[in-house]
Amino acid sequence: MNRVTVSVPATTANLGVGFDCIGAALTMANQFEFTAVDNNTALKITVLGQEAEKVGTDADNLIYQSFVKLYQQIGQTPPNIELKITLGVPLSRGLGSSATAIIGGLLGANNLAGNPLSRSQIMNMAIAIEGHPDNVVPALLGNCQLSVAQGDQWQICPIPWHAEIIPVVAIPNFELSTEQARSVLPDSYNRSDAIFNISRMGLLLRGLATNNSQWLHTALADKIHQPYRQKLIVGYEELHSAAISAGAYGMVISGAGPTLLALSERDRTEQVVRSLAAAWTELGIEPIVRSPAIDTVGARVL
Amino acid sequence: MNRVTVSVPATTANLGVGFDCIGAALTMANQFEFTAVDNNTALKITVLGQEAEKVGTDADNLIYQSFVKLYQQIGQTPPNIELKITLGVPLSRGLGSSATAIIGGLLGANNLAGNPLSRSQIMNMAIAIEGHPDNVVPALLGNCQLSVAQGDQWQICPIPWHAEIIPVVAIPNFELSTEQARSVLPDSYNRSDAIFNISRMGLLLRGLATNNSQWLHTALADKIHQPYRQKLIVGYEELHSAAISAGAYGMVISGAGPTLLALSERDRTEQVVRSLAAAWTELGIEPIVRSPAIDTVGARVL
Repeated sequence: MNRVTVSVPATTANLGVGFDCIGAALTMANQFEFTAVDNNTALKITVLGQEAEKVGTDADNLIYQSFVKLYQQIGQTPPNIELKITLGVPLSRGLGSSATAIIGGLLGANNLAGNPLSRSQIMNMAIAIEGHPDNVVPALLGNCQLSVAQGDQWQICPIPWHAEIIPVVAIPNFELSTEQARSVLPDSYNRSDAIFNISRMGLLLRGLATNNSQWLHTALADKIHQPYRQKLIVGYEELHSAAISAGAYGMVISGAGPTLLALSERDRTEQVVRSLAAAWTELGIEPIVRSPAIDTVGARVL
Repeated sequence: MNRVTVSVPATTANLGVGFDCIGAALTMANQFEFTAVDNNTALKITVLGQEAEKVGTDADNLIYQSFVKLYQQIGQTPPNIELKITLGVPLSRGLGSSATAIIGGLLGANNLAGNPLSRSQIMNMAIAIEGHPDNVVPALLGNCQLSVAQGDQWQICPIPWHAEIIPVVAIPNFELSTEQARSVLPDSYNRSDAIFNISRMGLLLRGLATNNSQWLHTALADKIHQPYRQKLIVGYEELHSAAISAGAYGMVISGAGPTLLALSERDRTEQVVRSLAAAWTELGIEPIVRSPAIDTVGARVL
C-alpha cells in the first residue's frame, strides 16, 4: 500500500507592516495522510479534530485540488486516494489553514509520485494557487520568510528571529474570510502612508533580529491594511490595549484576521496570554490564546 | 581665541527603496572652521575648494543660519564669527551637502557654547531644519542609518553594511535641485507599488548585511520616486546598463540626484567606476566617479 503523511505548520502573515510579503511558521500543524487505493475506490476524505465538520470532503477540497494539480503539472493521472485530515490549525482565522492545505496536497502528491518536483518548484506552484506568498512560503520552509517578486520569479529571504521574541496568537470563535478582509482595502495610498510602512519594515527586521523593544514597539504598526480591517474585528482596540498593558511589544492582525498576533518577550508571555484572553472574554467572545514557538522545520513528510 | 573646526561627511540617501528614511555616510567631507571674534567684527565667510564661488557668504548661508538656530534654542545671543568652509562634498548633487551645512552649523555652535545640547537634541534640530532625516542622521552619526518617525519622536536604527559592499558615486557636472526632484512625485501610489518597496526594503537590509548578490540585485529598485525622477537625469538608463554590465549589484539615484549610486562587490569596484565614467563621458557629461568607503564615525570636532 502506498501511503504518505505530511505535516504542515500554521503561519502568521503580514506582521503588521509586511503586507503580502512576510510570514512566519508556528508550531501548530495540520496533518494529511494520503493513501493510494485501487481504481475502483471513490475519493474518501475523513476529517478529525476541532471544527472537522466545516471541511468539505468532496473533490472540491483544496487539499485534494492541490494534490491533483501536482499530477497535472507532471503530466500524470493522479491515483485514487483516501485522505485523512487531522486538524491542528483553526480554519479561516488568519493562521494559514488554506496554505497548509495547498502545501499538504502538493507535497503529498509529489511524494506519492516519487518526488519529481523540487521544493522550489512546489513553492512556485503553491504561490500561484494561493495568489500570494506570505503564508505558503513559511508553511513550506519554516521560520520567518520574506518573499519578493522579481518579474515572475520569487526571491525568498529567511528573516532572523530572536529566540526571546514569542508570538502570542489570540484566536476568536468567529471567522473572517480573506475575501471580505481584502474587499475593504483602498486602491491607493498617499506617500506618507507608504513611507510609514517602508521605514517600519526595516525597523521590524532589525527589531526581530535584536529583540530591541523600542524598535519592535514602533515597528508593529501599519497603514496599508490594518486601519481598514480593524473594524471587522470586534475588540481589536481593547485587545491592543490589553497586549500593551501586559508588556507586549505590540499587536497586529494575523494574516487577514480575525486572529490577533502579539509579540512578547519570553518572560511576559503568560501575562500577555492571560490579558488577551480576558479582554475578549469580557466582550462575550470565547478565544483560544496560545504562545507557540516559531516552527523552524516547515512542512515535512512524517 | 575661541575656535572650533567640524568635519561632516557626505551622505547618500534613499538607496532606492528607502525613500526619506535611510541613508549612509561616505568618506568625503566638508570642513567648517568657526572662530568667535569680537563684537565689532562683521560676519565673514570664506570658502575654499571646488565650486567655492557657488556658496553664499552672507547671513543667509545655511551653515550660519543653523549656527544661529542653536543659540536661539539655548536662549543665548550667538557670538560674532568668522567661518571658513573647505568643500569636499559637491553641491546640489544628491550627496547631502545641505545636511553637512546644517550639522556643521549646529555642532560648531554647540561646541563654542560649551556643549549644552546632546547629540540626540542636535539630531532632532537638524531633522526639523532639513525636513527629512535621511541625510542629517547618518551625517551626524556615521554608518548607514534608518530613521522612523513615531509621533514627534524618531527611532534611529543603525543598519549593518557588509564590508565587501562598496558604494560607487557617479557625480555629473550638472545640478538638480531637491525642490525640482520633489515636484515630479505623484501624490498617491497603488498597493502593488507600495508592496514593491516594502518587500524590497526588507530584502535590501538582508542584502546589505550578508552581501547576497541576488537579494541586492532585486532590492536595488524602487516605485516611489525613481520612476518619476529618472527622466530628470540625462543618461540614467545608459548608466544603469553600464553599472550592471560592469558587475555592480545595481544602481539607484543618490538622494534627489543627479548623482547616481552603484553598489558593487569590492573586486569589481574599479570596473564599475570606469564603466560609469565612460557612459556619461560618451553623452558629453563630465562626471567625477569615486568609490568612497562608508564613513563609520560621522560628524566630528577636529
